[in-house]
Amino acid sequence: MADVDRSQHEVKKSDQAIESRRNDHEHSVHLDLTSLEVHRGKHQGDKYVRVIRSGALRRVAPGVLRASELVSRPHGKIGHLYTRFKQVLVGKPLPTEAEKVERLNKIRALAVFSSDAISSSAYATEEILIVMVAAGAVGLAYSIPLALAIALLLAIVSFSYRQTVHAYPSGGGSYTVSRENLGTQAGLIAAAALLIDYVLTVAVSISAGTAAITSALPEFYDYRVEISVAFIAIITLINLRGIRESGTIFALPTYLFIVSLAGVIALGLVRLWLGDISPASTPHFESNEFEPVTLFLILHAFAAGSVAMSGTEAIANGVPSFKPPEAKNAATTLTWMAVILGVFFVGVTFLAHQFGIVPHETETVISQLGRRVLGTNVLYGIFQAATMLILVLAANTSFSGFPRLAYVMARDGFMPHQLTFRGDRLAFTNGVVMLGIVAAALVVAFGGSTHALIPLYAVGVFLSFTLSQAGMVRHWWKTRESGWQRSMVINGTGAILTAIILAVVWTVKFQLGAWIVFVMIPVLVFVFNGVHRHYRHVAEQLNLTPAEDRAAAPPRQIVIVPIGDLNKASLRALNFARSITPTPVAVRLFYESYEVEEFRKEWAQWGTNTALVFLESPYRSFHEPLLAYIEALHRQDPAACVTVVLPEFIPAHWWEHFLHNQTAFRLKTALLFRKNTVVIDVPYHLEK
Amino acid sequence: MADVDRSQHEVKKSDQAIESRRNDHEHSVHLDLTSLEVHRGKHQGDKYVRVIRSGALRRVAPGVLRASELVSRPHGKIGHLYTRFKQVLVGKPLPTEAEKVERLNKIRALAVFSSDAISSSAYATEEILIVMVAAGAVGLAYSIPLALAIALLLAIVSFSYRQTVHAYPSGGGSYTVSRENLGTQAGLIAAAALLIDYVLTVAVSISAGTAAITSALPEFYDYRVEISVAFIAIITLINLRGIRESGTIFALPTYLFIVSLAGVIALGLVRLWLGDISPASTPHFESNEFEPVTLFLILHAFAAGSVAMSGTEAIANGVPSFKPPEAKNAATTLTWMAVILGVFFVGVTFLAHQFGIVPHETETVISQLGRRVLGTNVLYGIFQAATMLILVLAANTSFSGFPRLAYVMARDGFMPHQLTFRGDRLAFTNGVVMLGIVAAALVVAFGGSTHALIPLYAVGVFLSFTLSQAGMVRHWWKTRESGWQRSMVINGTGAILTAIILAVVWTVKFQLGAWIVFVMIPVLVFVFNGVHRHYRHVAEQLNLTPAEDRAAAPPRQIVIVPIGDLNKASLRALNFARSITPTPVAVRLFYESYEVEEFRKEWAQWGTNTALVFLESPYRSFHEPLLAYIEALHRQDPAACVTVVLPEFIPAHWWEHFLHNQTAFRLKTALLFRKNTVVIDVPYHLEK
Repeated sequence: MADVDRSQHEVKKSDQAIESRRNDHEHSVHLDLTSLEVHRGKHQGDKYVRVIRSGALRRVAPGVLRASELVSRPHGKIGHLYTRFKQVLVGKPLPTEAEKVERLNKIRALAVFSSDAISSSAYATEEILIVMVAAGAVGLAYSIPLALAIALLLAIVSFSYRQTVHAYPSGGGSYTVSRENLGTQAGLIAAAALLIDYVLTVAVSISAGTAAITSALPEFYDYRVEISVAFIAIITLINLRGIRESGTIFALPTYLFIVSLAGVIALGLVRLWLGDISPASTPHFESNEFEPVTLFLILHAFAAGSVAMSGTEAIANGVPSFKPPEAKNAATTLTWMAVILGVFFVGVTFLAHQFGIVPHETETVISQLGRRVLGTNVLYGIFQAATMLILVLAANTSFSGFPRLAYVMARDGFMPHQLTFRGDRLAFTNGVVMLGIVAAALVVAFGGSTHALIPLYAVGVFLSFTLSQAGMVRHWWKTRESGWQRSMVINGTGAILTAIILAVVWTVKFQLGAWIVFVMIPVLVFVFNGVHRHYRHVAEQLNLTPAEDRAAAPPRQIVIVPIGDLNKASLRALNFARSITPTPVAVRLFYESYEVEEFRKEWAQWGTNTALVFLESPYRSFHEPLLAYIEALHRQDPAACVTVVLPEFIPAHWWEHFLHNQTAFRLKTALLFRKNTVVIDVPYHLEK
Repeated sequence: MADVDRSQHEVKKSDQAIESRRNDHEHSVHLDLTSLEVHRGKHQGDKYVRVIRSGALRRVAPGVLRASELVSRPHGKIGHLYTRFKQVLVGKPLPTEAEKVERLNKIRALAVFSSDAISSSAYATEEILIVMVAAGAVGLAYSIPLALAIALLLAIVSFSYRQTVHAYPSGGGSYTVSRENLGTQAGLIAAAALLIDYVLTVAVSISAGTAAITSALPEFYDYRVEISVAFIAIITLINLRGIRESGTIFALPTYLFIVSLAGVIALGLVRLWLGDISPASTPHFESNEFEPVTLFLILHAFAAGSVAMSGTEAIANGVPSFKPPEAKNAATTLTWMAVILGVFFVGVTFLAHQFGIVPHETETVISQLGRRVLGTNVLYGIFQAATMLILVLAANTSFSGFPRLAYVMARDGFMPHQLTFRGDRLAFTNGVVMLGIVAAALVVAFGGSTHALIPLYAVGVFLSFTLSQAGMVRHWWKTRESGWQRSMVINGTGAILTAIILAVVWTVKFQLGAWIVFVMIPVLVFVFNGVHRHYRHVAEQLNLTPAEDRAAAPPRQIVIVPIGDLNKASLRALNFARSITPTPVAVRLFYESYEVEEFRKEWAQWGTNTALVFLESPYRSFHEPLLAYIEALHRQDPAACVTVVLPEFIPAHWWEHFLHNQTAFRLKTALLFRKNTVVIDVPYHLEK
């Protein structure tokens, strides 16, 4: 509603501005193409005044016009319907200057950027326990130090990213940091890894959220792919509506989860301290044969638990979305996120161990914990619902991160320029839609199975962490800012740790599917380089060179007018050609020889002495003989520009196009690839 | 092979002609756009001579050039592959002047146009027996007089069409005859009925032919739809190769069937006369309760047997396909066809009755007859194969008739003009392809079931017979040629008879599916009228009117050049604009205000003093503000032509198009519908 009011207000304001300007110039007689000033000249009448009054164009400075929202008013019924439909879906268009208003405050930013990271506390503990349970109770005892170690790693990585946020306030994800400090290819590798992980975050989170629903309501199990795709479609739409609104929508479930999990942990600690719940004497194990606790087992559990760290990148990449001061707000939000995630992760792990909870096939660890602390009641139901919601909505983090990274890369020329385009609501439309489509395709391809997707997940993230932090090490080494040694140690530790985890994750997950990611990354890097090479070539070829281009003069033109029947449309084309050059040549194609004399007679009457060539097409093709003729003209005079003036009549209704040969269109397509050839379409609009 | 030789010969001949002409003009220095005469001017060098020597264009008279087959030589690898593939499928292109050679002699014409009619002798008797068997042996006895009555009707209808052939030598099907004598709407109704029946002939014949295969080889039963569609595709291709070749291909099975069925009938009569085979004492009936022989039962049987008459129209419609003298040859062929069909139909019915053959669920009447006369041996196998082949190939009749009728209607403006187009091989490509697609869709929709399609079939044909013969009655009444009374009686009898049969067929088949045809006919007539109205409107609006158009002068132009970045492409567009008018206006769109001053500086350097307008687009759309600007220009000067010169650069590889906004294309599309607006694309071709 606020938007509607604002734009109406704007229209009114601009109307007033025009009105006053109109009065100023009421007696002006100056008619100027560049100013489009308002005149009350007699022959233009009221019509012209109406355009300006309607506010479609407004003169803001000499030679500078401004288009208002009204230029996009739809034409015709279908146009109206389409615009209406689009506005219901994504809302009314916003002007570029509205951008600042669309920034996120910290409360909203935490919801938008952290749901991915924080939601991982719902499963990270379980991932550790699943590995360590192989070593029985002895193994499970390792879960607490492992959780603390991961929390420490999280603190180090977050600390590193805090510094990145300050060093790169315009959005410094791994791509930017790696590229600036380790070189372009390192940056592209980091970007490829991140883009893949963004897509996987959507696919995994949505699949897991859907699995939560279908576990509770098994009758929907057969529709899990459809439900996941519907979720992705809804999130895509929400993101197309623009970032502020999505912040509002996403705040509720995120904070519901934070409050309810915080409550569960606090209550659990209290009840544990009161001795209200006694720890399970012995956890129940499926088997009595246990593996020894090896270094590999511990590393494996560490790597499995590190899945919690996916999503840490999001805030650093999204700095420009924050309200100013962007860097400071982003750094604070990052700290909040790390603290919340760390507390949740360690808390859940500690309580799970105290209560002797082990992974179970049909019930998650966090659900077991909730049931033990809260009992099976309404509160437990709310807790589960919040868990489910945040899992589904975690996907939204990627919908902030992916389009923004794609935008940065497109701006740098490594991805198609179209990804820099901002839609009606200032969202990066193409990036949002691309992510939605690829993620939905992945969900469909993997049959909506979280289990099948998990091995691909969080592989890329550690690659980008490693590159980013190694980049930061280089950064400190170069800049030598105050305290650079300390920062370098922190980042160095982070880089080494994440590199080790990367190696472990790769080793563990490679055969399970991670190899796909390791194939995709070089492929993407290859594509990025190809795109960049293309844009560079284009720029090189188009760049103006003073010596050569300063001398460029209007080209010598040979103007030809292909004519079929002599009618108003072809006569208009002929007249147009004569307005370009006094000596156009009409070209008449014919299929049967009797046509020649007939046409010559008509031409004597209507051709206004224009030169006429007959071109016989014995094989009944239209554009091939014409192309041969143009080729011959070019061979006669290679420097000249052959301009083809095409009569084309436009039917009054779209379906009537099917009743005409699309010769003009086909000829245009064929001529598009000829050098030094220009096609001019002279349309003749039919009224009925 | 003959074609290849001929065209190579032609090329050689034209090369010689050019060579001699080149020698004639060797010393000419005249450079003329309209003659494109051959010169050995120094600066054109060998390149230009090569074009002419290659024979792409040839000067056949002053101001008249002729394109050779070589203008369609393909460019690039894909072009080569496509051309190669197309030539393998449909053969080398034929020039229009080759048309006469492609006419059919009587032997071939009989095969092409009669397979539909003659093949009906394979099932027409059975259709009568299926109805009359309800009245037992008493009913079956009526089959012979009924067959004779239908043969008489066939004779009358054929006789009527013989006269039509002479009265309308340029192709006089029911459409032409009805339209000329009963009015346009009657003609359109006849045409709609015929077109529907052509499609049904293909669907029914192909389904029946496939059913013959799948009955013999039940393992293919599940693939009957695929087999039918494949048959239709093959027949479509054969017809795209051109009519003479299809005549050759279709002659063999048609004559095989004629010879083998004639043999069966002759041998049957001989063995009957010799007493070699005794008639079955009593036919075997499924039930012993018989209906009485009512008038309705007889009419029903008559109508069912009249299915034999579908296809009679084909020859009358296809007169121009015959070798000259067309009318005489067509009339003779029509007589042959009627005699063969009549003899076959009466012969089969007589023998079936003599041998006491009754319809059987798993074996056709004609198969039972063949087995009785020939025994179950190789001869019987050939006979069955020929029956199957002619059933499948009967569809070809429609592939001659449908495109030709569509051509005639398109020429008259009732169907899209594209249907008059002749392909490389002079076939009516679009009509052939349209028939193939619709028939295949019908086969798929009806699951390849002949039984489901039959009720729709032969309903349209009697409507067109009735209209055609009523039209002929009117014709005799108007012309009063010698013997008009006799002809009028014959046509009148035919008209009344076919009208009665139409009523009976409608009554019997309406609920079984014939209603579809009775819905489709008015729908098609509505569409025909709509198409015609459109073409009439177009002609009215485009026709030159001396008073108005003689005075037409070249329009006053306002030339604008939308420019993004200043580069070689936009500079070329600007130069082009300056070659049209000395005062073009460059329009620079911008999204952020800082762009204005930056661009002004660049413009001072490169803009060659061209006027410049800045147009701000706060909603980030490209073409909408530009459209509003053009609209404002038009309101200032409604009579002027606003010419938009668009810089467009063409990437070197097709996939690179995806890396660029298609702004030029989108703007062109949007401007296409504005009056008095012309778009000029000035392409800049990238090399790499």
